[in-house]
Amino acid sequence: MGLSYLVYPGAHHTRFPHALGSMHLMQQSIQVLKFKGVEITKAEEEGLLCAILLHDIGHGPFSHAMEHSIVEGVSHEYISLMFMEQLNRKYKGKLSLAISIFKGQYSKKYLNQLVSSQLDMDRMDYLKRDSFYTGVAEGNINSERLLTMLHVYNGELVVEEKGIYSVEKFLMARRFMYWQVYLHKTGLVGEQLLIRILKRAKELLLAGEKLPCSSALRFFMENKISKEEFTPAILDQFAKLDDVDIMWAIKSWQDQSDFVLSRLCKMIVNRRLLHVKLKNKPINQERLQKHFLKFKKEHNLTDEETAYFVFSGETHNQAYNAEYQHIGILRANGKIMDVAKASDQQYLKALSKMVVKYYMCYPKVAV
Amino acid sequence: MGLSYLVYPGAHHTRFPHALGSMHLMQQSIQVLKFKGVEITKAEEEGLLCAILLHDIGHGPFSHAMEHSIVEGVSHEYISLMFMEQLNRKYKGKLSLAISIFKGQYSKKYLNQLVSSQLDMDRMDYLKRDSFYTGVAEGNINSERLLTMLHVYNGELVVEEKGIYSVEKFLMARRFMYWQVYLHKTGLVGEQLLIRILKRAKELLLAGEKLPCSSALRFFMENKISKEEFTPAILDQFAKLDDVDIMWAIKSWQDQSDFVLSRLCKMIVNRRLLHVKLKNKPINQERLQKHFLKFKKEHNLTDEETAYFVFSGETHNQAYNAEYQHIGILRANGKIMDVAKASDQQYLKALSKMVVKYYMCYPKVAV
Amino acid sequence: MGLSYLVYPGAHHTRFPHALGSMHLMQQSIQVLKFKGVEITKAEEEGLLCAILLHDIGHGPFSHAMEHSIVEGVSHEYISLMFMEQLNRKYKGKLSLAISIFKGQYSKKYLNQLVSSQLDMDRMDYLKRDSFYTGVAEGNINSERLLTMLHVYNGELVVEEKGIYSVEKFLMARRFMYWQVYLHKTGLVGEQLLIRILKRAKELLLAGEKLPCSSALRFFMENKISKEEFTPAILDQFAKLDDVDIMWAIKSWQDQSDFVLSRLCKMIVNRRLLHVKLKNKPINQERLQKHFLKFKKEHNLTDEETAYFVFSGETHNQAYNAEYQHIGILRANGKIMDVAKASDQQYLKALSKMVVKYYMCYPKVAV
Amino acid sequence: MGLSYLVYPGAHHTRFPHALGSMHLMQQSIQVLKFKGVEITKAEEEGLLCAILLHDIGHGPFSHAMEHSIVEGVSHEYISLMFMEQLNRKYKGKLSLAISIFKGQYSKKYLNQLVSSQLDMDRMDYLKRDSFYTGVAEGNINSERLLTMLHVYNGELVVEEKGIYSVEKFLMARRFMYWQVYLHKTGLVGEQLLIRILKRAKELLLAGEKLPCSSALRFFMENKISKEEFTPAILDQFAKLDDVDIMWAIKSWQDQSDFVLSRLCKMIVNRRLLHVKLKNKPINQERLQKHFLKFKKEHNLTDEETAYFVFSGETHNQAYNAEYQHIGILRANGKIMDVAKASDQQYLKALSKMVVKYYMCYPKVAV
Repeated sequence: MGLSYLVYPGAHHTRFPHALGSMHLMQQSIQVLKFKGVEITKAEEEGLLCAILLHDIGHGPFSHAMEHSIVEGVSHEYISLMFMEQLNRKYKGKLSLAISIFKGQYSKKYLNQLVSSQLDMDRMDYLKRDSFYTGVAEGNINSERLLTMLHVYNGELVVEEKGIYSVEKFLMARRFMYWQVYLHKTGLVGEQLLIRILKRAKELLLAGEKLPCSSALRFFMENKISKEEFTPAILDQFAKLDDVDIMWAIKSWQDQSDFVLSRLCKMIVNRRLLHVKLKNKPINQERLQKHFLKFKKEHNLTDEETAYFVFSGETHNQAYNAEYQHIGILRANGKIMDVAKASDQQYLKALSKMVVKYYMCYPKVAV
Repeated sequence: MGLSYLVYPGAHHTRFPHALGSMHLMQQSIQVLKFKGVEITKAEEEGLLCAILLHDIGHGPFSHAMEHSIVEGVSHEYISLMFMEQLNRKYKGKLSLAISIFKGQYSKKYLNQLVSSQLDMDRMDYLKRDSFYTGVAEGNINSERLLTMLHVYNGELVVEEKGIYSVEKFLMARRFMYWQVYLHKTGLVGEQLLIRILKRAKELLLAGEKLPCSSALRFFMENKISKEEFTPAILDQFAKLDDVDIMWAIKSWQDQSDFVLSRLCKMIVNRRLLHVKLKNKPINQERLQKHFLKFKKEHNLTDEETAYFVFSGETHNQAYNAEYQHIGILRANGKIMDVAKASDQQYLKALSKMVVKYYMCYPKVAV
Repeated sequence: MGLSYLVYPGAHHTRFPHALGSMHLMQQSIQVLKFKGVEITKAEEEGLLCAILLHDIGHGPFSHAMEHSIVEGVSHEYISLMFMEQLNRKYKGKLSLAISIFKGQYSKKYLNQLVSSQLDMDRMDYLKRDSFYTGVAEGNINSERLLTMLHVYNGELVVEEKGIYSVEKFLMARRFMYWQVYLHKTGLVGEQLLIRILKRAKELLLAGEKLPCSSALRFFMENKISKEEFTPAILDQFAKLDDVDIMWAIKSWQDQSDFVLSRLCKMIVNRRLLHVKLKNKPINQERLQKHFLKFKKEHNLTDEETAYFVFSGETHNQAYNAEYQHIGILRANGKIMDVAKASDQQYLKALSKMVVKYYMCYPKVAV
Repeated sequence: MGLSYLVYPGAHHTRFPHALGSMHLMQQSIQVLKFKGVEITKAEEEGLLCAILLHDIGHGPFSHAMEHSIVEGVSHEYISLMFMEQLNRKYKGKLSLAISIFKGQYSKKYLNQLVSSQLDMDRMDYLKRDSFYTGVAEGNINSERLLTMLHVYNGELVVEEKGIYSVEKFLMARRFMYWQVYLHKTGLVGEQLLIRILKRAKELLLAGEKLPCSSALRFFMENKISKEEFTPAILDQFAKLDDVDIMWAIKSWQDQSDFVLSRLCKMIVNRRLLHVKLKNKPINQERLQKHFLKFKKEHNLTDEETAYFVFSGETHNQAYNAEYQHIGILRANGKIMDVAKASDQQYLKALSKMVVKYYMCYPKVAV
């Protein structure tokens, strides 16, 4: 959940219970499908449980911010895969089937879809879980009913027709959670600050400055690691990183002499973030420029330095993407239909549209 | 909830707790609005609580079926009003303000809207309540948050902008509940059977047959009462009617010699209802005709008699009706916008479209 | 729940969902025990599900009141058994194992205990269900965790040691529900009125008076049926009875000329019950006598008639009965201990004591 | 919740929402009491809200462990008070009434009791909150009903008689939470390890070793601060400490050369804790000695070093302490009775007994 706790103070949950929860839902799905006569062998069952348990293991602390600043160009899926392969070597091939499912390459497509698709166990768990911890009731999906409606048709995971309203609700819940939680403007500005803190610290380290830092974090700050260079030894370093390394650094760097780094860190620690405006239309660049010049002059900064505090960007969300991987509805007549077509209304088509929002950040007037 | 318990066996709740619940939500709304500086006098407060407490008192047992067969042409709102006026006479005018609000004629429009509008306390309570008793989680709205977002602008009840996702969820929940509960095909066929039972019984009584019946029910079966004839004495008779009168009659009439009446009653009592198909397209009349002729011949019936068992019809729902009474969103800039326009997506427009479904009923093959 | 809805207006739920719910919990228990290596054959599984589904089928409407007035001397368990035997004849012996379990005669004692013991599925379901519908949170037990802790030791159903707090909470919840719901003084007076209504109606019928009544109810009012006389034909009559028969009679009998019957019925219908005092000490008979004489004189009644309105009695509850059927706790060291001894405190011993309360009822002063 | 997340992985919530939640309950209590005619002035209302909002502000990270190792001899209540006094100076006396209530010295005793007593808002919030985040349903108290039952009698906070079952449930819930959560053996061993880590680190620092550490933590490790020495400047240092300082130190100290410190830290980080036995009887010291000698020899340690890994202790809990501050029940007859006497059973007396449990910890056999 990154810095969402700045908005929802209960949202301090970690990825560990999410991994357990997804595995729990997977057990239930397996039970439902087997009950309906879908063949899932003992080995496949283990593969599914193992794949979903480990699907997020490659996430570093504040993962989305990290991907922009520390492990640039190496996705968390890739790192998850490396962890799984390392375990597979240790356990002499026992994870091969799990890895095949995780990569989406297993012969039974519906098993891959249980791990990664628009209705996978990952999403079912995190929507409900994040709704629970934030208190945003709009995201509280009926996962029990959704699971009960799962079926397999022509090798694909589908939903029985009478579950169509639950799918609709699921997609709506997902959209609500995006705008109310994941892309909430305060969480967004927190994340942007974090990205800039790590970027600035990297610059200072490269310029030879000394910054207090755990050794694991320092390693990734001082070395740009490409996919090819991600050896087991580097993976071990990566495994040592957690939120504590990042938050400790931010707390420590408040006292650094560099204006930019110190100021950005204080903003996070004291929760005195930048002002943020979120709009349906592109940002008025003139207005942004005014804030830019004002802050630049006020603190006697360079353009590069000012850009750490005054900037714009965009964020987008598409609740349902029928092209990427559609949700098939199994009609009573035995035919499959995309959920957006099977629904009796046009709003699922609307949900398939990409929604873009534009933001602009600039410092609050000091009090 | 009519005969919804045929589908959701927990749905045996009565209108009494709904009246209390709506009054409870009204208390909370009053508190929220007063806290925001909206003036509501002590007398208006009492008027609101009284109006919402009594808003449904004119509903007879299985109200929607009754309106088609027993108190034809007299709406439950009209009967509620008569009860309130009778109480007003008894309590020497103390309900005058409540009546004015209930009729939508009070000078402060937003008070009328708390009792009857697209976001009134009635709907807030019944959606959540029916979701609770049926177990259909999709209808579980966040009424607490919705209430907190209420405000008044230019004399109208509006919702603050940051509550827009809760309004969207509320409208979605309403739509879900319509199709999953209120218009569920099994409940629908139950209601159609009930309407036909009462119609048939009326015919037989007019033809001079003797049917066991409570005296209050008999009165309304044997007399067609128009609005003008609804005297206080008749209101007293009406007040005696409840579900027990109807269900007892149905249980008793199973043993009547009339094939139609007996058969219809047994269908309800033994929960062996008609077969029902619910479609997005108009019913194929040829196919219906086949069922009609088959049953007619099988039981040697007249066309009129057969029509009690084989028939078609349509049902419709519109989740949001911006023309009738729109939901205004109070923007941060102080302007009001209709919720369908304020939303960042087009699906609220889709929700404003009337959805029609078509059904056809015919007897199951006996086993 | 008898007349508990007079106190908790949401408590209109029927026995049907309770039967389904108990069966659902049974499925989960079976799964848990099999997972722990307890052998339960396919046939035993069916027997358990069937026995719990039908365990309450012999309950008539307002069962506890009925047992005192209509089917005197024939317990609901006995009638359940007759229904099961009738079904067994129809289904050619397929229910024999279920019947054996229901009677507590099956060779594996722990299977019998799942259906009837201090921790059976019946109790687990009704506590949670009644807590849900009344809103009395104190009864909301953690059935999921309790089930997970079940085990079998030496052929007996036991609870693993780490579940001891859940057992304690279960017993506490049971006690809370007894005093707050099942033995609530308003529900208690309602039930006493109902018993007296049926008793009085019986007397009048025997004296030759004509009372409107459904034929099934009339049959049981006019005939005292002993266990031996309970033939299949009489069972069919019994199956026709439900709440509607009783409530319809009460509504109708309000207009009877007999003062006692009419008055008692009006009390229920208008919810203007008798005054009731519930005490920890025996009732002061002098004070009762004063009420008795006052009402007798006021209405010019005989002693027998007055006793319908002014009376005393007692009610008792024992949350945990270690003698009847104890709850065994399976210690980590493999030994079994009674829960009251295994607990680290003495209050479970306190719970094992029978608690008696005394009540006195008399008419409210008319307004 | 200290290290309870080692047992309940969802329990990562912080004190911040607890402070807000307690304040929310306080608002409700104030409303209830004012509605019942208890006089609470605007200033007192502010004082109550302020006192409860700040009541826990003096807790450092892993507070209970800290009190044994870092800020020895200075209670968190004392530090809370210092924070409040500092704020009071800044806000020119606006917190004086709050401070008086917090110290339990305000003239209206019932206001002090809302902040600190056996039924205060602090306990009501944390029981429900910890139940929510751990998933231990046994602690889910009905705070709404408890608050509604509050009243004031003779200047004391009491509970109306019909709320007695809710008080009983509250005391039971508290006891359950103590044994299932707060004193859970795994959380307990985690806390003991933490205490020993801080103690060992202190010893090493005093001996001149260099340990990586945040400056604020180092300050409290290297200086023993008495109550008298707790100046505002030291309070500022204290305010900088949070969980991150502690966890970062533990992560870093894994790599230290000192066997004891490194080993203890690894136990926490890798969640490979000591073995722990929790008993109702005092620990068998001979058995403990065997473990002691074995580990000492295995790693060639001194007695002092070995004692970091092999030790025993005791823990206790008393759910209800009638002597310290009793809970008064307001009988219908206007008299006050202690809840333990008002209850119809003896188990509340049992709850008043101090329960002691004994534990012994020693290393697991390495795998």
